This record gives sequence, C-alpha cells and structure tokens, in this order.
Amino acid sequence: MPQAPARITALDTHDIRFPTSRELDGSDAMNPDPDYSAAYAVLRTDAEDGPRGHGFTFTIGRGNEVQVAALHALRPHVVGRTVDEVCADPGALSRDLVGDSQLRWLGPEKGVMHMAIGAVVNAVWDLAARRAGKPLWRLLAEADPDWLVGQIDFRYLSDALTPGEALDLLRRGREGAADRTARLIGHGYPAYTTSPGWLGYDDAKLTRLAAEAVAAGFRQIKLKVGADLDDDVRRCRVAREVVGPDVRIAVDANQRWDIDEAIRWTRALAPFDPYWIEEPTSPDDVLGHAAIRRAVAPVRVATGEHVQNRIVFKQLLQTGAVDIVQIDAARVGGVNENLAILLLAAKFGVPVCPHAGGVGLCELVQHLAMFDYVAVTGTTEDRVIEYVDHLHEHFTDPVTIRAGRYTAPTAPGFSAALRPESIARYTFPGGTFWAADPGTAEGHTA
Amino acid sequence: MPQAPARITALDTHDIRFPTSRELDGSDAMNPDPDYSAAYAVLRTDAEDGPRGHGFTFTIGRGNEVQVAALHALRPHVVGRTVDEVCADPGALSRDLVGDSQLRWLGPEKGVMHMAIGAVVNAVWDLAARRAGKPLWRLLAEADPDWLVGQIDFRYLSDALTPGEALDLLRRGREGAADRTARLIGHGYPAYTTSPGWLGYDDAKLTRLAAEAVAAGFRQIKLKVGADLDDDVRRCRVAREVVGPDVRIAVDANQRWDIDEAIRWTRALAPFDPYWIEEPTSPDDVLGHAAIRRAVAPVRVATGEHVQNRIVFKQLLQTGAVDIVQIDAARVGGVNENLAILLLAAKFGVPVCPHAGGVGLCELVQHLAMFDYVAVTGTTEDRVIEYVDHLHEHFTDPVTIRAGRYTAPTAPGFSAALRPESIARYTFPGGTFWAADPGTAEGHTA
Repeated sequence: MPQAPARITALDTHDIRFPTSRELDGSDAMNPDPDYSAAYAVLRTDAEDGPRGHGFTFTIGRGNEVQVAALHALRPHVVGRTVDEVCADPGALSRDLVGDSQLRWLGPEKGVMHMAIGAVVNAVWDLAARRAGKPLWRLLAEADPDWLVGQIDFRYLSDALTPGEALDLLRRGREGAADRTARLIGHGYPAYTTSPGWLGYDDAKLTRLAAEAVAAGFRQIKLKVGADLDDDVRRCRVAREVVGPDVRIAVDANQRWDIDEAIRWTRALAPFDPYWIEEPTSPDDVLGHAAIRRAVAPVRVATGEHVQNRIVFKQLLQTGAVDIVQIDAARVGGVNENLAILLLAAKFGVPVCPHAGGVGLCELVQHLAMFDYVAVTGTTEDRVIEYVDHLHEHFTDPVTIRAGRYTAPTAPGFSAALRPESIARYTFPGGTFWAADPGTAEGHTA
Repeated sequence: MPQAPARITALDTHDIRFPTSRELDGSDAMNPDPDYSAAYAVLRTDAEDGPRGHGFTFTIGRGNEVQVAALHALRPHVVGRTVDEVCADPGALSRDLVGDSQLRWLGPEKGVMHMAIGAVVNAVWDLAARRAGKPLWRLLAEADPDWLVGQIDFRYLSDALTPGEALDLLRRGREGAADRTARLIGHGYPAYTTSPGWLGYDDAKLTRLAAEAVAAGFRQIKLKVGADLDDDVRRCRVAREVVGPDVRIAVDANQRWDIDEAIRWTRALAPFDPYWIEEPTSPDDVLGHAAIRRAVAPVRVATGEHVQNRIVFKQLLQTGAVDIVQIDAARVGGVNENLAILLLAAKFGVPVCPHAGGVGLCELVQHLAMFDYVAVTGTTEDRVIEYVDHLHEHFTDPVTIRAGRYTAPTAPGFSAALRPESIARYTFPGGTFWAADPGTAEGHTA
C-alpha cells in the first residue's frame, strides 16, 4: 500500500516579546521604547522525522497579539496541504493567501494581514529549504529561472516589469554564478552596523561603539536622527571624528519629517557627509521621496523597511525617488514578493541594501541579499546588509559576522527558527520571563 | 461634594457577520462572495443616562475577528478618559491612537490597525454628537473653523495643504451655510445606486433593477465590471438601453486590472458612455491611476474606498490622477482624517463622491458629504453619495432615501448604532443565526 503523502498538520503560533525597551536599544525618533517582538509561526507536518517550517512577523511590542490573530486567520489555507505541493510551488500558496477575497479587504496587500501572509510564506520557504538540505540563498540561486519567474505575482507590475524581462534578468544572473558562490562562501557579504547610533545613547556610548565598529571591520555605520537638530549635528560631528573620512555614515529619520523639513534637516547634516538619508518622510509618500531626493543630492535617499508592497516599490523606482532600495524580509508578502522587488530594483539599476535588526531580520534577509549577489545583480558594490547585534542568541542558526561581513549561512533553511528555550521564556504573557514580571507585562495590554 | 467627571468605562466589541454571500449581493470582480460584516465597538461611560458611542470597521467576512483583536489593542488608550475630554477634542485621542509607537509599526496608518483606529475615533464622534444633541453633519457644519483645523493631523500633508489654507477653506465655507442647511433639510443630497449592478446578477435582474432605480428617481447607477469583457459590453448595453442617455452609468472594476488592461477595457466600454471608471487598478498605484486617467478621458477616473490614508489621497490629487475622490467613512482613521481628505479635495477642486454600501457605510458617510456641502465646498454639483439597499434595517437610525436623494439625518449622533436584536442574532459565531447554521459558520474560520 503506498504511503499517504505528508501533509501540513498544524500552523502553531507564538506571541514572543523581548523586553528591549529597558536599555533603549532600538530607540529612534519615532520609536522611543520598542519591545522587540515576533508573531511566530511554525508549520508542523506528519512527515516522519521531517523538518518544520518557521516564519514570523517582527513587531515592536503592543499589537503583537493582533499579528498572531492574523496568523490564525490564514490557517485554513495552509493546514491539510501536502508538503510536496507547497514546497514545489510556494508561489501558488502565496497567491491563494493574497487572493482570499474576504481577507484581502483588510489590506489589500498591506499592514497586519499582509505581514501575516509574509510570515506564513516565509515559513513555507524555510520548510522547502530544509527539505532540500540547502540554505535558502543557495536554493534560490540554484533554482531554474523559469520556475523562479513563476514564483512572482506580476499583478500591478506589468507596466514596470514583465515576466519576460524578469526571465532575462535571471538568465543573465546565472552567468558566473558558480564563481560568485565560491567568493561569497570565502568572503561573505558586506554589512553595516546601526548598533552605535540609537537615539537613546549618549555621546560617550556613541563614541565607544562607533570606534568598536570600525575596529571590527565595518565600513559603514548608521545614526538615528530626527528628534532634535542640534543634537543630530553634534552626534554626526562626534561620529565623523571617530570613524574618519573613509567610513560611511548613514543617517535614519524613521519617517519623522514632512518634505520641507526633511530637506532642511538633511542639508544641515550635509557637512558631515552622510552617505544616505533613510526614511526622511512617510513610506507612503512616493512623490515626497522624489522631491526630497532632488533637493538633497548628493546625499542619497534610502527607504523600504516600511514600504508595504511591490506596488509602492515600483513607483519609488518609476519616479526616481530613491537611490537605495531597502527590502525587509518580513514586511511584505514573503520571499515571493521580495523576488519581485529585487528584480524591479535590478531592472532600474538601483542597489538593494536590506533593512535588518529587530528580531531575526538579519537572519532572514541575508539570504535574499546573497541570492541577489549570486544570481541577479552579480555585485556587492555599494551594497550592504544592515547589522544590529540584538537577540541573535535566540535563533538556532544565528548570523555570523566576520570583519564587518555576513558569513554565508550553510545550515539548511531560512535561518528562521527560534530556540525552544527562548520561546518558553519570552512567550507573552505566560512565558517564564513575563510571568515573573507582571508589572512590565501590564504595559503591553489592557 | 462635586461629582466625579464621567469617564469611558468600557470599549465593548462585537464580531457581527451577515450571510450576504447567499444572494450574491455585493459580488464584484474581486469579491465574488462577500459576507458583509462589522467589527463593532461601543464606548460605554459611567454618565447616568448618558449616551454611548458606536463605531465599526466594515469587512466582508473572514478576518473580522482580526479587526476585533485590533480594537482590543486600542482599549488602554480609551478606557478611563473623561467623556468631556474626548468629546471636546477627538483629534487629541486620534493623534494618541495613531501615534502609539508600538502599534504604529503594524501600519503605519494603513490596514487592520488603522481601520480599527477609525472605528474608535468614529465612536467618539458618535458619542460627541449624541451628547451635543445633533446629527454629526450639523455638529461639524456648526463647529468653529479654528477648532476644526485643530482636529486635523497635518503630518505629511504640509506640502499640499497647510493649516492656514485649511482655515481659509473652512471660513469661506461658512458663507451661506445657513441657506444650504435649509436646502439640505428640504431637498436632501443626491444619491446613486449600485443595487442593479452586482456581477452575480443576470441580465433580467439587471434590467429590472435598473428600471426600478430610474423610476425611483436615481440619476446615476453603477455596474460592476472586470470579470469578462464580452459580458461587460453586453451588460453596459443592456443598462444603457434601460436607463436612456441622460442617466449616468458608472462602472467599477474593483482593482481588477493592470494599467494597459484598464485602458483597453475602459475604451471598449466607452461607446456606452460610462461616467466614471472606478478602481481600475491597485489603490496603491498613484502613478498608474494618473496614466489611466490620461488615456481614458473623457471617461473620469474615480477611486478611494481602499485608499489607505490621507497621504495617498494627497498624491492622487497632486498628480491629477483622479477626477473623483471617493472617501470611505470606515477605511481611514475616522472623521478626523476624512476632514483632511475633504479639505485636500476642496483645495484641488476635485469633487467627492463617497463610497458606501457594505454594513452601515451609507449611514456614516452621508454625514461627511452633507458637512462638505454645507460648510466646505457649498455645492452638490457632480456630487453623489453611493447608495446600496443592504442591511439598513439593522441600524437604529437607518438612512432614508427619497426620490434618489439622501434625507438629512435629524437624530443625534453619527447614525452608527446597530439594533440590539441584530447584534444578538448576527454575532459570530455565537449569535442565534450562526449558532443555528454551524455549516455556514465553518467556512469562516479554521
């Protein structure tokens, strides 16, 4: 009797919260006291000894339970499918999730529901890569270009990128891919670090951390700005003095400004040679970014961590609104939508410098950047992945940084699995950490 | 001893779902089988015999429970405030809700979290208008222009609309307002009806309902299009034959198309003189709408029911992407954000024709359109409020339509309260309707 095919039997969810606000790690002009959190999903299967798939939405605390509720709403689309089916074609599942006409009303393709879809889609890719015995970057880089094009939803993109153009990009990307894979494994992928630049740190801590970053091999650091101009001028001066003229300093306003203010403020920081200004205004304001970019050149404009989907990225590229595209692995609809965004950026010739940090965003997004290098754009020039030294210890396959560069992951999967001990400790509100500290927990919910 | 001031003591939530999919009411090219639903919120106070405030997010079924979870997340911001405080300045509460830095991460200002904020903000306005003993349209129309400007969050708007410009618009809007109030009460506000045009209706039903619409006094009807071009050509021909040359026919694609397809399809329907093409593509695609508008004139382009916030409306107006702004009372952050959108539209000289239908959207949005007429633009020319004859019987103050026009509401409040019997019957899954029909209920959740 032939065995029944393995199926997905459960989509388990976990509300995980880390008390990061106590140290002002992660503090910026819009987010003074984040508690880095994850609405975490695990796909279980009935395959004997088979792997699980892991995915999550990153949040900064309150509302993480709303993301968990959104994960629950997706269960009927996932549970019961065969493992072979979803791993052979994550794009089909992705389209079903995005296309659920009733759930679509809650977006469409934006916000809580779309991020939950991204978590589930990413969990499927984690499962697929584990089953294939490959890190995700390698699975993508070795995939057939036709199959990869089939993984992309071109709806609302065809005026900027057609399936034929995407196929051409991917076919050209294959040339020399083996050499680049070897180089990636040998040398890693360049990183920059935001760890020195949180707004809540004083000048002494900034100085110390910036010097450590340079000593550790980073060629770019990032400073949060946007709360107080005098402070920012002083902090940029301090940072520039510490790192010298050759290390790039990016500045990040986290959406703090209107257009005119963004232009004024960025010009005031220009004497310290900022490499890019990040999120100068609302992530929804395509025209605003374009106006700012025209006004602040040669300072570059970067955005993307809060850009909701491929349609807004398309317009940022069509209007020449950005110098740098900052993909985020867990904001849009997962790997499939990020494939579209990487190819859009490649077509428009704009470098991708991924957003990371948070909970597990470094772990995820390194795979996408490495795929981009090996099999799409073929270069790391002017490309860097954000690195923040937060919370990596909670992952079973944490990122490794050597001499300011991400090491290519070798473990199968998407590096998305949290350690069981961390889940037990930081589950909210019942985990051992929060249960021991009900006072802090109270600030999170009614 | 002075009495303690009345406070908001609870934010009650209800998951309300109506089984509309059984009749294909509400069916369109993207939403084949909606079950019209509401994540419904009631603000209770400890004021003796004092009114409650009612608000809701409209959804189309699955996922309504995610909206309810988002309402829960807002409770700590609302419960415990004094009634006087929130009613005197709903804008302050609105800014606190939008500005919660941790919840903001889940948007910002879009999707599930933003719609939940809209429901709570609208509930406050319902409470404020009930306490003032006025229908909301009248409360707004009689409000001091300076106070109204203070109700608006100008963040990300200042490149298109300043507080000074808003004040000028509102001061000019006061001229002749008393006459317009009298005319509104005497004659109502023009409506159009979508009831004939759902995609799931056959030609006989379309013919009958279109004829009934004209006989009832409507001067505009709307047809859903976008599933099959041959069908649409036939349906537009049928409708045009029934209503004659002088009744306007709007067509609505519900985001079905990419840019080129939208242009081709709209041109193919042009012989039947469509008044506007609504939602031809993604609501996120500002540039796409602009390209479509250039190509399909003189057919007008309308959008807005899924436009996430004022920032996208701003860009639609800045790029000349739309002929008609379709505000929705329950998609954006409530009355305060809609004030901003009405003033943006007024500044750019683009008429507002609100989206309605669904659950209670007609009840809410009539107030905003009537305020716009009385105290902002001063005209109803080329302005119509959508009307669909669904589910009004569940509201304590349902809309009244006479001779194709909305009658000005006279009851105090925002017309947002559901009848207790309807709540008891259609609460999901425990209400008497759903409990009696567990088979249908099962399609809604895992």
